[in-house]
Amino acid sequence: MTNVTANPSEDAAIRELRDGLTDAIRRKDADRVVSYFSDAPVMYILSPPLQFAGDEGPGKDGVKEWFDSFEGPIGYDIRDLHIVAGADVAFCHSLIRISGTRRGGDPTDIWVRETLGLRKLDGAWKIAHQHQSVPFYMDGSNKAAVDLKP
Amino acid sequence: MTNVTANPSEDAAIRELRDGLTDAIRRKDADRVVSYFSDAPVMYILSPPLQFAGDEGPGKDGVKEWFDSFEGPIGYDIRDLHIVAGADVAFCHSLIRISGTRRGGDPTDIWVRETLGLRKLDGAWKIAHQHQSVPFYMDGSNKAAVDLKP
Repeated sequence: MTNVTANPSEDAAIRELRDGLTDAIRRKDADRVVSYFSDAPVMYILSPPLQFAGDEGPGKDGVKEWFDSFEGPIGYDIRDLHIVAGADVAFCHSLIRISGTRRGGDPTDIWVRETLGLRKLDGAWKIAHQHQSVPFYMDGSNKAAVDLKP
Repeated sequence: MTNVTANPSEDAAIRELRDGLTDAIRRKDADRVVSYFSDAPVMYILSPPLQFAGDEGPGKDGVKEWFDSFEGPIGYDIRDLHIVAGADVAFCHSLIRISGTRRGGDPTDIWVRETLGLRKLDGAWKIAHQHQSVPFYMDGSNKAAVDLKP
């Protein structure tokens, strides 16, 4: 995939959105996190179920719960962000390192893959779809590969 | 997310592509599978590593190897396909049931989530990004949730 996109200004707008989402997560600002999403996004998240669709998604309460599961700050760093933007539909993908101390004292430090599907709605880009995952070892253990580094 | 898309004809073209990919996998036709992808797609697949990018991807040999890992046919069924298409950028996501008998005799039957990022290049839609995953249980086991059903 080349770095040439059809719409450099839309590319910049989506980069700004992704940076805003990163900042909101680091600040544990659930209202701001939710503001980047469309109504009823379809979400494939790290833990079951397979999907959240319609109004059943984790929403602001789910985001808050996730924030509260960390003692203190959440480390959140992105690399290999690729953005492909059209006039009103876009997708982007990246690798994200999530680290910190879970409530109870267990340290966590994991690299995940993320793909976002975005739509420009009423002049503003919104995340309509989020897919986050880690791969798993197909060696019979079926263990999630939480120890990988890019 | 509503079912209204900006470009119903592009929506139909991508549905045709996704149906073609399904058919190619059921027929174990690696050449045809690869034909639906752009050059050097960025891929997040079910097993490690975190990503394939550039020319390092699994390619036709990787697809053939995967096909050969099944004795006989591959069961491949899609549901909840959502397509969001612009004029030259699109994404779609769905749940896919992959079933069959692995070489050696072990049966497999797993639901996975898939997101595709697509670009219209020289008049034809191509998959520039594929993200497939299962979630994992955050109960301390870190086991991939290969037993989920939608």
